[in-house]
Amino acid sequence: MPRTGLLIVNTGNGKGKTTAALGLAFRALGHGMRVCMIQFIKGKWNYGELKAAERFDDLLEIHTLGAGFTWDSENLAEDTRIARKAWDFAKQTLAEAKHDLIILDELTYLIEYNMVAEAEVLAVLKQRPAGMHVVVTGRNASPALIEAADLVTEMQAVKHPFDEGVQAQRGIEY
Amino acid sequence: MPRTGLLIVNTGNGKGKTTAALGLAFRALGHGMRVCMIQFIKGKWNYGELKAAERFDDLLEIHTLGAGFTWDSENLAEDTRIARKAWDFAKQTLAEAKHDLIILDELTYLIEYNMVAEAEVLAVLKQRPAGMHVVVTGRNASPALIEAADLVTEMQAVKHPFDEGVQAQRGIEY
Repeated sequence: MPRTGLLIVNTGNGKGKTTAALGLAFRALGHGMRVCMIQFIKGKWNYGELKAAERFDDLLEIHTLGAGFTWDSENLAEDTRIARKAWDFAKQTLAEAKHDLIILDELTYLIEYNMVAEAEVLAVLKQRPAGMHVVVTGRNASPALIEAADLVTEMQAVKHPFDEGVQAQRGIEY
Repeated sequence: MPRTGLLIVNTGNGKGKTTAALGLAFRALGHGMRVCMIQFIKGKWNYGELKAAERFDDLLEIHTLGAGFTWDSENLAEDTRIARKAWDFAKQTLAEAKHDLIILDELTYLIEYNMVAEAEVLAVLKQRPAGMHVVVTGRNASPALIEAADLVTEMQAVKHPFDEGVQAQRGIEY
């Protein structure tokens, strides 16, 4: 069967990479598609999507698996261990082929910081079920990941309120 | 009361402008916020979001009001009439202050093609209730709109599957 599932990458330094992936999930859920979002970086700010996901508990799973990424050298080994465990979960989820759309949120950081090998990520993505859409988000998507992708969007920050000291807004940022 | 609601603009030639707005809606709905999306350009591809929205019928309204925008000179007067009617609906919705987040999807086109006056749009946005978040999407956001916004992201297409003749995908594009 020829591949029909897209590999989508949302990268760039702006807002909207994860948010656009959530929007894709919303649209896919409307079609009755089964969606799994795996968050590789644990944010403080997942409340909104986790609560909204409850309305789709027949179709949508969100797994927040990653470390907090303190980038404190003392915790780097621990962060790496947690990141690799999250990646193993993602690999298994892709192989199970139970979902129509899988979002690998902030996966690019794991590649960038050599917590998982780029070649392994690319191989796993390539071997996924033919009809499965995958979205990878995160800054600094590698050239090889961009090359492998079908659709790549770069979100560029033109203006950001945090530059001007505006507080993060409930329901918008988190 | 000082303004706490953000004016967010998603612009650029890439994918993800409307999709990121949908993602914001999803997150906001998780917080129990009341959301209204007004689509100024009627797409063929609203099925996914309209179906998903049914799960949030206590909190989310989607109004697809715009013309199909054929850009056929014979229909331009009619397109303009429909666009102005949609804009009047949006103005009324903003003034009613019944929502925490209002998405004005593809509004930039109405400004760009002089179907509504930029000055009027900016005045209406400025006069909105202090706590109300507004997201404006569409290509070619005008400099004055960008100046008025708190958060502006430009979505740039790095790679698009339609360039390579891949068909639009159910649940992803529509």
